[in-house]
Amino acid sequence: MSANTFGTLFRLTTFGESHGPAMGGIIDGCPAGLIIDNEFVQHELNRRRPGQSGYTSPRDESDSIEFLSGIFEGKSTGTPIAFIIRNTDQRSFDYDHVREAYRPSHADFTYDSKYGFRDYRGGGRSSARETLSRVAGGAIAKLLLKEVGITVKAYVQRIGEIDTAQDFSIEQLENIESSPVRCPDKAASDKMLTLINRLKAEGDTAGGVISCIIEGVPAGLGEPVFDKLQADLAKAVMSINTAKGFEYGDGFNAASMRGSEHNDIFIAAGAGKIETATNHSGGIQGGISNGADIRFRVAFKPIATIRQAQQTVNRIGESVEIEGKGRHDVCVVPRAVPIVEAMAALVIADHLLRNRSARL
Amino acid sequence: MSANTFGTLFRLTTFGESHGPAMGGIIDGCPAGLIIDNEFVQHELNRRRPGQSGYTSPRDESDSIEFLSGIFEGKSTGTPIAFIIRNTDQRSFDYDHVREAYRPSHADFTYDSKYGFRDYRGGGRSSARETLSRVAGGAIAKLLLKEVGITVKAYVQRIGEIDTAQDFSIEQLENIESSPVRCPDKAASDKMLTLINRLKAEGDTAGGVISCIIEGVPAGLGEPVFDKLQADLAKAVMSINTAKGFEYGDGFNAASMRGSEHNDIFIAAGAGKIETATNHSGGIQGGISNGADIRFRVAFKPIATIRQAQQTVNRIGESVEIEGKGRHDVCVVPRAVPIVEAMAALVIADHLLRNRSARL
Amino acid sequence: MSANTFGTLFRLTTFGESHGPAMGGIIDGCPAGLIIDNEFVQHELNRRRPGQSGYTSPRDESDSIEFLSGIFEGKSTGTPIAFIIRNTDQRSFDYDHVREAYRPSHADFTYDSKYGFRDYRGGGRSSARETLSRVAGGAIAKLLLKEVGITVKAYVQRIGEIDTAQDFSIEQLENIESSPVRCPDKAASDKMLTLINRLKAEGDTAGGVISCIIEGVPAGLGEPVFDKLQADLAKAVMSINTAKGFEYGDGFNAASMRGSEHNDIFIAAGAGKIETATNHSGGIQGGISNGADIRFRVAFKPIATIRQAQQTVNRIGESVEIEGKGRHDVCVVPRAVPIVEAMAALVIADHLLRNRSARL
Amino acid sequence: MSANTFGTLFRLTTFGESHGPAMGGIIDGCPAGLIIDNEFVQHELNRRRPGQSGYTSPRDESDSIEFLSGIFEGKSTGTPIAFIIRNTDQRSFDYDHVREAYRPSHADFTYDSKYGFRDYRGGGRSSARETLSRVAGGAIAKLLLKEVGITVKAYVQRIGEIDTAQDFSIEQLENIESSPVRCPDKAASDKMLTLINRLKAEGDTAGGVISCIIEGVPAGLGEPVFDKLQADLAKAVMSINTAKGFEYGDGFNAASMRGSEHNDIFIAAGAGKIETATNHSGGIQGGISNGADIRFRVAFKPIATIRQAQQTVNRIGESVEIEGKGRHDVCVVPRAVPIVEAMAALVIADHLLRNRSARL
Repeated sequence: MSANTFGTLFRLTTFGESHGPAMGGIIDGCPAGLIIDNEFVQHELNRRRPGQSGYTSPRDESDSIEFLSGIFEGKSTGTPIAFIIRNTDQRSFDYDHVREAYRPSHADFTYDSKYGFRDYRGGGRSSARETLSRVAGGAIAKLLLKEVGITVKAYVQRIGEIDTAQDFSIEQLENIESSPVRCPDKAASDKMLTLINRLKAEGDTAGGVISCIIEGVPAGLGEPVFDKLQADLAKAVMSINTAKGFEYGDGFNAASMRGSEHNDIFIAAGAGKIETATNHSGGIQGGISNGADIRFRVAFKPIATIRQAQQTVNRIGESVEIEGKGRHDVCVVPRAVPIVEAMAALVIADHLLRNRSARL
Repeated sequence: MSANTFGTLFRLTTFGESHGPAMGGIIDGCPAGLIIDNEFVQHELNRRRPGQSGYTSPRDESDSIEFLSGIFEGKSTGTPIAFIIRNTDQRSFDYDHVREAYRPSHADFTYDSKYGFRDYRGGGRSSARETLSRVAGGAIAKLLLKEVGITVKAYVQRIGEIDTAQDFSIEQLENIESSPVRCPDKAASDKMLTLINRLKAEGDTAGGVISCIIEGVPAGLGEPVFDKLQADLAKAVMSINTAKGFEYGDGFNAASMRGSEHNDIFIAAGAGKIETATNHSGGIQGGISNGADIRFRVAFKPIATIRQAQQTVNRIGESVEIEGKGRHDVCVVPRAVPIVEAMAALVIADHLLRNRSARL
Repeated sequence: MSANTFGTLFRLTTFGESHGPAMGGIIDGCPAGLIIDNEFVQHELNRRRPGQSGYTSPRDESDSIEFLSGIFEGKSTGTPIAFIIRNTDQRSFDYDHVREAYRPSHADFTYDSKYGFRDYRGGGRSSARETLSRVAGGAIAKLLLKEVGITVKAYVQRIGEIDTAQDFSIEQLENIESSPVRCPDKAASDKMLTLINRLKAEGDTAGGVISCIIEGVPAGLGEPVFDKLQADLAKAVMSINTAKGFEYGDGFNAASMRGSEHNDIFIAAGAGKIETATNHSGGIQGGISNGADIRFRVAFKPIATIRQAQQTVNRIGESVEIEGKGRHDVCVVPRAVPIVEAMAALVIADHLLRNRSARL
Repeated sequence: MSANTFGTLFRLTTFGESHGPAMGGIIDGCPAGLIIDNEFVQHELNRRRPGQSGYTSPRDESDSIEFLSGIFEGKSTGTPIAFIIRNTDQRSFDYDHVREAYRPSHADFTYDSKYGFRDYRGGGRSSARETLSRVAGGAIAKLLLKEVGITVKAYVQRIGEIDTAQDFSIEQLENIESSPVRCPDKAASDKMLTLINRLKAEGDTAGGVISCIIEGVPAGLGEPVFDKLQADLAKAVMSINTAKGFEYGDGFNAASMRGSEHNDIFIAAGAGKIETATNHSGGIQGGISNGADIRFRVAFKPIATIRQAQQTVNRIGESVEIEGKGRHDVCVVPRAVPIVEAMAALVIADHLLRNRSARL
């Protein structure tokens, strides 16, 4: 019900503005007895951190997490797990020039329209820095999923017009972190880097597409009719900054296929197990997981802050010119990989718990 | 929070199985004083009804709605509006052959996996007939939106490989109902019909894409960070049967664009009004409407029931052959137009009420 | 979250006005595989029905329930269970005299204040007839509880100034239905009947107190900090028409006790089981059930409709005199027994499911 | 939906264990533009703080609040308001003796039953220290209510067997803070102090009753049928540690009254305003405020920790003797006054926002 809470039973509530004292959140509904691996959580946060390579914003924050509750002797207690991440590098003067101006395709105008005023420092609540809390929450969700053999992995499939034409399995993603753009296709990865360098020189930005695979999900997760698994996944990732599209299985391509092509034939896989011969469905049928890998993709637009002069208006409608200053990425898509994984993990963890009530 | 309830303040809960006594639902949270135009609601239901043309399933149900509560002297009272639509044409014998078999790409296997058994008659709860209740709920939402000048209209953009290359404005959709496939482009419409006829002969099915436009939404609707307007729209439409993808604004195409191309420049539109010169954003920025038309698209896979023999397995993993019987559409995309509109209307109505708490 | 929905996982949504076409509701979240005993549900509804004795309102409605969904071959399917109960005896002319007048201590004035107008026929949504749907929902909850050995039983402890000084165990309530006032103490029961007869003659009404016992609840139900078991029970019963107070365990009396008196000492009960020697706590400690009987009480005010002339005002503030007409009870407390049980059963069923997520 | 979240639109989520790093919470849904008076919030926290007099626990914590988000230039921004209060005085060695033993009438046994283990330091999450976050959230709610002229005030009506027989108006509570037991009746206040001193000497504890008045609530707040105003108030206060009973208006006394006595006659109060001549209803009719003062009472049991030897068992059912050590109150009822006010303020703030959707 709450705009800053995600999930039904495994729930994450986030808070924090880009240049306020801290980001953070509360995970409520984590079952008791889960070993909380702090290093893993911090590792996930580091994956999201800017300044990991020359290709992303050099804002260097330690982003170190402090847990405030819900953990005792290394294990979750069943009570809310709160955490904060202090904002240590708040150069708010960088943003004074946008106090009055509405940056094109940013949330300045809409926040003012909604709330009457806004925390204009670094985008305030609309900053992508908010996703830090999602990654922290998602890390706890991943720990829960690990207990039942579920793995969530994502990779960059496209940056700008460079697209790896291939599909990858989760095993092929093992060395994904060695690619600075998190693309497992070496050739495509190199081209993406070349593109980013060119755009950096031009003061421009690029979008892209992320593919995500969830392996090990048992058949039965998903809650028709409104909380179908794909519906909750769609909401989860479409709530990430700059996401513009979601598809699962064959997605938009399915629109051009015949039923006879798209149908996944069931086969007996031995030991009473039933599988599908193909996976056009992307692991979900009728809104419920069928045991196959869940596969979905998310499209991201290019980020709005460019290092070129742009025309816009200010609060009172006067024409002003604006140009991106401060620290900004050319392409955030590689950094969005852990965010997409986090949101997917939150959805699956939630549905895992919800499914406990499916039967007598 | 409930799997069969959609919305936060303007809430629809639905019930009903394809071959049970009735479909229906409850709308809770509709403000008091709204004139309930029964004819309009019935008209919307009729738009979803099968058998409207030779191209859709000839199941002929009157689908007439009965309101049970929440309306007094023609107006909403602020209490729950319940409605039912009796299932009058329940030929359950049509479905006996699927009692044990798992139809490919249907929800038979996943429902059994989740619940241990299922109402196998006509798909039970997983039947698209469930969307009847959504259309009824959406009709009430549309009446509410009309009061504040908001219009929701959708049309078929693609069926199979036939795509109208054009974008349409809401004004151009005025005669949309005269196209049997609900495509405003006459040439494309004709090709789509030809395709459907061919597939009918072949016993095959097709998917497609629907475009939706929401006009008149004031700036300010949407609730960051998780209930961003696009996130709720994505969830809404991805919960419709056979939906496989969602995008808004430039969607997946935005992934290939530059920031300098994609950014929507703000301009003063007179009388203190601020607008964008272009609408790559699809009417939403930072998760909040900006006053421009909201535009999104939904991809649908071809329906799974085909009139061709298919291999599959039954509950105990034995190989069986199956072939679609009974009444089935070649392509449900035209009939999904009112469903998409209904879900979009529910989202906007909900956010309209939620936004009443945005400011002191 | 919705005003007409109760529960988190086991959820009841109700609808219906006293003189509209039907009362009804939807139970969402009932686990699949529960045998739905229609006769038991109807029996519960009959227990609530007016006209069971000379002491309650002679409105004679069959109140027969029709299930519309969620049940297949006699068992719950895991999908929403919808039901309706037609209103067959709608003598709306009885209420024409209150169309404009505000009856003292009724909801006429407050509904008008909130919604701007109201369905004035028989109290509309504010009628106690709404509790029919609660009893139906509670009956399903009771069937679920029975599966795990939990029983909910209530009885009348007080009517007006007549109070049975005793506490009863659940076993002593076996013949409770043979008392026309549902009080297990024969002497008190007789005095209550005498009081009711006298008040009937006087055209006056009485309130009372109901005691409820829930037996067989395992230790561990309840969700601190806000959804403590007593908090949810309090909300549940305080939402019943005319309820004025709630207490559990020693309740208001506990306020006068010493810690040394009130504390329940733990003892080993054999086989590793731990119990309390006394039950001042009423079966709940720290918001969580401790395995002892849960005991609570609910106070009801006398109903507002009396057969005496009363002064009041109408919508425009003019002085008018009003006198109760139509069919009205002298004391609804005996009929509230199944309603209190139903609300308690809904709470326990919900917490039973919620507790499934407490541990890894 | 979440056990640690309270409210629908104005929502408080709390976290923190007695001896963990910090207590805190998130307020989500506070409208933008509210001036956040930090001093007032701190003042409210101070009112709850132990060690205010010789009669309460001498644990001396500064309990100073830090806001982490949601406030910009002194005003709420419409985004989540997060706050923390560090636990500075964590003498966990005080509690080592209860690591294995189940203290009578504490939550040790039930937490273990539910979660499998517990943070045993100072009661962990079950500690009344959790109410700090409620007082902080309630303080923000009070600031919101002040904007529309609503005041919430509570006082101690009873401690042990000492009860002020009088009813007080909100005006008479102006100097309430000058009474060390927060009772406006000087004679009763003195007797209460005498009682507390005697119990301190005896190593025993006392419960009591708090009365609360909410003034200035407009007619129309409350959401039938389940979220009636009294139902939400009941849940709110029954979720406070040691609360055992709730009643509003004439409460349990109403059970002994006649309808003709209890009914509140409506009168014209001039200027089109309609009022009731009496207030037996406690300001709520049909679940909706009627414009009169809302009045309710809460009963609290004596706290369980006494300075006397008590028999109990440990985790494995062995008999052990236990005696209260550390810092403990004789009677927490005076300190519960700001907690009751906070919970009431949260309920009214929430319903104030919810009511914005009542009408077209």
